[in-house]
Amino acid sequence: MYSVSVRDHFMIAHSFKGEVFGPARRLHGATYVVDVEFRRPDLDADGIVVDIGRAGDAVRRVLADLNFRNLDEATEFAGKNTTTEFLARAIFDAMVAAIGRGDIGPGASGVESLRVTLHESHVAWAAFEGPVAGR
Amino acid sequence: MYSVSVRDHFMIAHSFKGEVFGPARRLHGATYVVDVEFRRPDLDADGIVVDIGRAGDAVRRVLADLNFRNLDEATEFAGKNTTTEFLARAIFDAMVAAIGRGDIGPGASGVESLRVTLHESHVAWAAFEGPVAGR
Amino acid sequence: MYSVSVRDHFMIAHSFKGEVFGPARRLHGATYVVDVEFRRPDLDADGIVVDIGRAGDAVRRVLADLNFRNLDEATEFAGKNTTTEFLARAIFDAMVAAIGRGDIGPGASGVESLRVTLHESHVAWAAFEGPVAGR
Amino acid sequence: MYSVSVRDHFMIAHSFKGEVFGPARRLHGATYVVDVEFRRPDLDADGIVVDIGRAGDAVRRVLADLNFRNLDEATEFAGKNTTTEFLARAIFDAMVAAIGRGDIGPGASGVESLRVTLHESHVAWAAFEGPVAGR
Amino acid sequence: MYSVSVRDHFMIAHSFKGEVFGPARRLHGATYVVDVEFRRPDLDADGIVVDIGRAGDAVRRVLADLNFRNLDEATEFAGKNTTTEFLARAIFDAMVAAIGRGDIGPGASGVESLRVTLHESHVAWAAFEGPVAGR
Amino acid sequence: MYSVSVRDHFMIAHSFKGEVFGPARRLHGATYVVDVEFRRPDLDADGIVVDIGRAGDAVRRVLADLNFRNLDEATEFAGKNTTTEFLARAIFDAMVAAIGRGDIGPGASGVESLRVTLHESHVAWAAFEGPVAGR
Repeated sequence: MYSVSVRDHFMIAHSFKGEVFGPARRLHGATYVVDVEFRRPDLDADGIVVDIGRAGDAVRRVLADLNFRNLDEATEFAGKNTTTEFLARAIFDAMVAAIGRGDIGPGASGVESLRVTLHESHVAWAAFEGPVAGR
Repeated sequence: MYSVSVRDHFMIAHSFKGEVFGPARRLHGATYVVDVEFRRPDLDADGIVVDIGRAGDAVRRVLADLNFRNLDEATEFAGKNTTTEFLARAIFDAMVAAIGRGDIGPGASGVESLRVTLHESHVAWAAFEGPVAGR
Repeated sequence: MYSVSVRDHFMIAHSFKGEVFGPARRLHGATYVVDVEFRRPDLDADGIVVDIGRAGDAVRRVLADLNFRNLDEATEFAGKNTTTEFLARAIFDAMVAAIGRGDIGPGASGVESLRVTLHESHVAWAAFEGPVAGR
Repeated sequence: MYSVSVRDHFMIAHSFKGEVFGPARRLHGATYVVDVEFRRPDLDADGIVVDIGRAGDAVRRVLADLNFRNLDEATEFAGKNTTTEFLARAIFDAMVAAIGRGDIGPGASGVESLRVTLHESHVAWAAFEGPVAGR
Repeated sequence: MYSVSVRDHFMIAHSFKGEVFGPARRLHGATYVVDVEFRRPDLDADGIVVDIGRAGDAVRRVLADLNFRNLDEATEFAGKNTTTEFLARAIFDAMVAAIGRGDIGPGASGVESLRVTLHESHVAWAAFEGPVAGR
Repeated sequence: MYSVSVRDHFMIAHSFKGEVFGPARRLHGATYVVDVEFRRPDLDADGIVVDIGRAGDAVRRVLADLNFRNLDEATEFAGKNTTTEFLARAIFDAMVAAIGRGDIGPGASGVESLRVTLHESHVAWAAFEGPVAGR
């Protein structure tokens, strides 16, 4: 299996609901350093997994929808705790949609699965990985 | 699959037995930077994989049992070479036991598998991963 | 010159005032990974710059005063933009005060200067360094 | 599953053919920081996955064949774009051959699979992983 | 003293002339991960060292002049070995010129000195630091 | 000022004497990741600070004298706590001696100062810097 990964980041405010979160129930924030890994079993005719330039642009657009926001006011996440693992899944879904729309080019149709990792600090990170639905 | 990872470290002395180890047969030591990854297919009702605070505390307790010790005198490892890969497994087993005892809370019962990585330097690391036995 | 450095982190929400900040004028947040460097020309009788355990505890207490907060509501920063460089200075001042109170032990009286670095992402960081006033 | 990983690097010049590569069609170059992960289900009698000294030496020899070269003139890659993912596979193949020749010692016969990761910058990397053929 | 640092990268081919360079006399290449640190004794009225957005843009433009090139054919470096330390100085000079032209805004006139670090691998880096001439 | 830095590591056992060290008074160990920075105001005729190959070899030899040892039995450190900051100085002194002996070549005579940093974990490090005596 081949993979290509790109890194970017975004910065948000949010708070959590539930006893388990302790002081993180207060409004606070995070920088998330995001790694998106694209996987496929074979390279295309150019010798690549995806066009890394277009892949990076697609990641940037997905993160731009979240960047510099208070996620407590994000209607798309209403009623949800925007934990690191939850956001990893949300970005995974957005990347699958981007591939489906052709944002990363026709070559990205060969991508079988993705892994999205969000680093919230030097000592904690979360990830979601799964197949690209509909392939 | 979702995952959450936490990082901590411990510092020990040890020596190895066997031709293959060369100068590492002498008493020396290591800092191990430890990453523990908790994996499960779905998030719980709070939107998390595990209570990251309790998970970090459990990792700290497991590493505290090893920290600042000469592992050559550790009866639990008698007759074994405490290599990086061996210690990754030992910490994996201790984390599985911690989950079984409920140290990370009832939510951790949803954790299907763990990956424990020990970084022994900037150029070498080892890992053990496997299912959480008994689930 | 000798130095010892310790790393910790905190997570906050805030927003900025001023044209220069663009989208960062919206409420957002950040994880700051903080490095505090303690410097002195000679080691003490134990062969150390500072008691690294007490130094780490003092950093933790200083960061605990900021962690999981919305800095827009912090009265101590009223009328200020809590930029990364501004916060580096605020933490520097708090660490100098901690040394002055003896929080890091009498040995810390030998510390001549500090450097406080705040990493806001994998591609941006800021620092403040200066002498420990009153020495 | 156990694994052991070692890190090394090499520095090359190359250019790419194909519209998708944009300015990377010009002769340029890269530092590749290479991680090779060796995996097996059980440890050997010494408590190791592989002799990490010999494994590191084998990686160094494989990378020495590429280091300080213009890959556009490498006959072994004629007609191919030497992308990061392509090179990850080439190094994977060379490592499998090294294991087959016994370069890493008889213990390496227990290695079931490898993962080779090439970091081309702080924001992009690629990997190839697969079973060790012929086992 | 305050500082703000930003990170970016570029990828080039080159070769060196002189016995001391050994195999690096062959055409090869490198990824340089570049950190530019801007220093000044006081913050401006907005509470910043420089407009980090404009600073990052200026770094990107300076690196774009080098990116995806064979430096052996760069007339501006004719007769010079484009070593890591030499390039750190060249980028320092280009950043000083960018500040002088006002590329980073009028606020950057308060910047007293710069440090430019180029990481050529995980085990080697070089830097040049100095005052911003003409201030 | 120009600088060039190289990274290597060593692994030792030791224990400390003194109340301040708490559990670190027990025999334990550490991996030290070592950065040696060579500084000089001008480049030599080849465009370098030092021959990085010879510099790296010299660092390796200095660390080889410490690697895989129990420092409690090192006669050269008798009566001393081999703390991270103490070892940074010891390696600094050994590097100055190496330069004096010509181990890094005649070009290294232009090196004015060194900084030696020892990383003992992902959250703690120490350094010693000073002029190259006798220049």
